[in-house]
Amino acid sequence: KKSFRVVVLPGDGIGPEVVAEAVRVLETVSAASQDIEIKLETHQFGGAAIEAVGEPLPASTLKACQEADAILLGAIGGPKWGVNAKVRPEPGLLALRKALGLYGNIRPANFASKSLLANSPLKPSIAEGVDIIVVRELIGGVYFGTRKEAGVAPDEDTAWDTMTYSVPEIQRITRVAAQIALQANPPLPIHSIDKANVLATSRLWRKVVTETLQAEYPQLTLDHHLVDSASMLIVANPRKLNGVILTENLFGDILSDESSVIPGSLGLLPSASLAGAPSVADATSPDFKPTPGLYEPIHGSAPDIAGNGIANPIGTILSAAMLLRYSLGLEKYAQAIESAVRKALDDKASGGFELRTADLGGSVKTSEIGDKIVEIL
Amino acid sequence: KKSFRVVVLPGDGIGPEVVAEAVRVLETVSAASQDIEIKLETHQFGGAAIEAVGEPLPASTLKACQEADAILLGAIGGPKWGVNAKVRPEPGLLALRKALGLYGNIRPANFASKSLLANSPLKPSIAEGVDIIVVRELIGGVYFGTRKEAGVAPDEDTAWDTMTYSVPEIQRITRVAAQIALQANPPLPIHSIDKANVLATSRLWRKVVTETLQAEYPQLTLDHHLVDSASMLIVANPRKLNGVILTENLFGDILSDESSVIPGSLGLLPSASLAGAPSVADATSPDFKPTPGLYEPIHGSAPDIAGNGIANPIGTILSAAMLLRYSLGLEKYAQAIESAVRKALDDKASGGFELRTADLGGSVKTSEIGDKIVEIL
Ligand SMILES: CC(C)[C@H](C(=O)O)[C@@H](O)C(=O)O
Ligand SMILES: CC(C)[C@H](C(=O)O)[C@@H](O)C(=O)O
Repeated sequence: KKSFRVVVLPGDGIGPEVVAEAVRVLETVSAASQDIEIKLETHQFGGAAIEAVGEPLPASTLKACQEADAILLGAIGGPKWGVNAKVRPEPGLLALRKALGLYGNIRPANFASKSLLANSPLKPSIAEGVDIIVVRELIGGVYFGTRKEAGVAPDEDTAWDTMTYSVPEIQRITRVAAQIALQANPPLPIHSIDKANVLATSRLWRKVVTETLQAEYPQLTLDHHLVDSASMLIVANPRKLNGVILTENLFGDILSDESSVIPGSLGLLPSASLAGAPSVADATSPDFKPTPGLYEPIHGSAPDIAGNGIANPIGTILSAAMLLRYSLGLEKYAQAIESAVRKALDDKASGGFELRTADLGGSVKTSEIGDKIVEIL
Repeated sequence: KKSFRVVVLPGDGIGPEVVAEAVRVLETVSAASQDIEIKLETHQFGGAAIEAVGEPLPASTLKACQEADAILLGAIGGPKWGVNAKVRPEPGLLALRKALGLYGNIRPANFASKSLLANSPLKPSIAEGVDIIVVRELIGGVYFGTRKEAGVAPDEDTAWDTMTYSVPEIQRITRVAAQIALQANPPLPIHSIDKANVLATSRLWRKVVTETLQAEYPQLTLDHHLVDSASMLIVANPRKLNGVILTENLFGDILSDESSVIPGSLGLLPSASLAGAPSVADATSPDFKPTPGLYEPIHGSAPDIAGNGIANPIGTILSAAMLLRYSLGLEKYAQAIESAVRKALDDKASGGFELRTADLGGSVKTSEIGDKIVEIL
C-alpha cells in the first residue's frame, strides 16, 4: 500500500468546522482504497497559532508542511488580528506559499450541481455550463518585484512597483496549465490572458506560453485574450472561456475572483496552490510522484457565523477532491467525491438530496452535509 | 452668445455613420440655445487620415484639436491597417491622448432605458438600477512607466514594467472624480479601487485620494475596495458600486470593460477623456471655462457592418451629451439629450418609441434613431 502524508491546518473561524467534514471524506477514501493510505496530521496555523505560540506559522508547522505530500487548510484570520495587530495570520499564509514554492494557483469556477444555476447573478442562459479553471501564477509578477513606497527619498512624492517575469517562471506555470488541461478527456483548451498591447512582461508571457505549448504540448489548443476583453467575456459570455484560463499573478487575482461569483456562493468553491505540474499518471503507477500542494476553500474564516455549525463545507470537501487529483494522483476518488457532492446538492426531482446550507438559503447544518457525502461515498 | 469650437473626427468603419447622427444632435442644441453657439469642424483622423495623407494624426488635425474646446470622435481602425501594417490608426489615438494631456477617462455604465434591462447578461434583479461612472486615470501607471523587453541585455530572459504614480497625478484625477460626483444632486459617493495590501503605488493612491477628498471635498463620501473584491462586486452586486468608481489606469481598463457589459450592448455606451476636472458652473456664468476633452463611443469601428447604415448611434449621441456636460457646462442640454434617448428606447407600453438597432435585436436604421432623437429634442 502506498502511503501519503497530508497535513491538516484547521485555522480560524469556521476553518475547523469545514475542515472536519473534509477530513472525514479523506478518511473514508483512505479506508475504502486497496492501494493507498492517507495519513492525516493536524497542526496549528494562523490566528490559532498566534494564540498558542505567538506566531502564525510555527517552525514545527512549517516543517510538517515541507515533509507532507499535501496540505489541507480551512481558513485564517479574524477580528482579533485586525489590520493594526502586531502579529497577523495572513503573513503566515504568504510565508507558507513562498517557503513551499507554491507557484501555481488553481481556481475552478463551475456549478457543483445544475440545481444551483438559479443562485448565479448571471442569467441562467449565460451561466449554464460554465466550467472554467483559472491557473494563476502565484509567486511572481508585480506582487514580488522591487517597489518603492512614497515618502522614501529620492522622489518622495512618487511610489513604484515592478512587474517582472522570467522565461522559466512562465514556462513552469504553462506546464501546470497544460497538465491540468490533459487530465480531462478530451483535453481542455487553454486561454492565455495578458496585456501584450501594452506590457513588456505580457509580450514575453505570450511568447513563452505559445512556444512552450507548441514544443511540449502540441496537442493542446491555445488562444490569447487581452485582460480587459477577458473581464468582459467572463460576464457577457463566460462559456467562451470554458477550459483553462492561464494568467499571471495580478490578472489572475482579479479574474479568478470575478469568475468565482458565477456559481452564486463562495462557499462552494475550492482552490489549490501547487509547487509543480500535476502528474497525469495514476497514484498506483510505479513512477508516480506526488506534487506538493496546499488546498483550501476560497471563502474566508467568516467569524460572524463561526461556532454555529452552519458553514458550508463543500468548498473544503471539493478542495480535498482537488488534493486527491493534483497531489496524490487519485483522479478516481476525486471524481467520486465530486459526484457525491453533486448528489447531495441536486434537487429531489433529479434524484438528489437537495441539501442547502445557509449561504444557499437553506438551514442544513455543516455536519449533515458531511454525513450525507460520506454516506453516498 | 458664447461660442464653442468642437472638432469632429469621424474616423473609420461605422465612425462616420454614427458621428453624423451625433452632429445633428449637437446642431439641434446649438440652434435651440439663446446663449451659446457650437461651431463644428470636421478633420481627418485614423485610418482615413492614413489613406489621405499617410499618417493617422496629421499636424493640421492635432492643431485643430489643441485649439478646440472639445472633440467628438467616431471610431478608428480596420482590417486594412492590421497588426502588421507599417502605419496604424491606434497610435494616432494614443498620441492625441498624450498630446492633449487627457488624463481622466470617464465611462458610465447604466441603462439608457429601463426597457433594456432584459439585454443584460445579469439577472434583472441584479442589473436593475445599476448606475456606475468609472473614472480611470489614463496617462500614468504601468502604461507609461519604464519597461524592459525580454531579449535585451542584461538579463535577456527577463522582462519588466514599472507601475508608477506621483502625488500630483493622483490628486488631479481625484479632483476629476470629485467634480463629477458633485454634478449630480445629491452628490454621488466615490468608490476608490486599489490593491493597497500589495502595491506601493496603491498605498500612495489610497492615501492621496483620502487626503485630497478630505481637504477639498469633505462633503463627499468615500470608501475603498481592493481590485479583486471590486471585480466580484461588479458581477455579484453592482449597485453597491453605484456612484463614481475612481481608479488607476490598468485597474480602470479592466473594471470599466467589465462593467460596460452590464447594459447588454456596447453600442449604447459613451466615454469621455478629459484634460481637467469639469466645472460645476454653468456655461453661461461669467467665470465658466470649458474643460478640453475627447468624446467617443466605447465600441470599435465594426468594419463588418460599416456602410450599411445599421450601426447603433446611441453611444456616440450620448458621448455628445457628455461633451455638453463636462466640456461645455451645458448640463441642461446633456439631460435633454439623455431623456430623448430614453424616450426613443423606452417600450411603447411606457410611452416610448421602442427603437431597436441590430445590436439590440431590431432592424431600425442608424439615421432613424437620429431622426427620432432630433424630433424629440
Ligand atoms: C491577501 C491577498 C494578498 C491575496 C492576493 O491578492 O494574492 C488574496 O487576494 C488572494 O487572492 O489570495
Ligand atoms: C488599446 C489599449 C491600449 C487601450 C487601453 O488599454 O487603454 C484600450 O483597451 C482602452 O481601454 O482604450
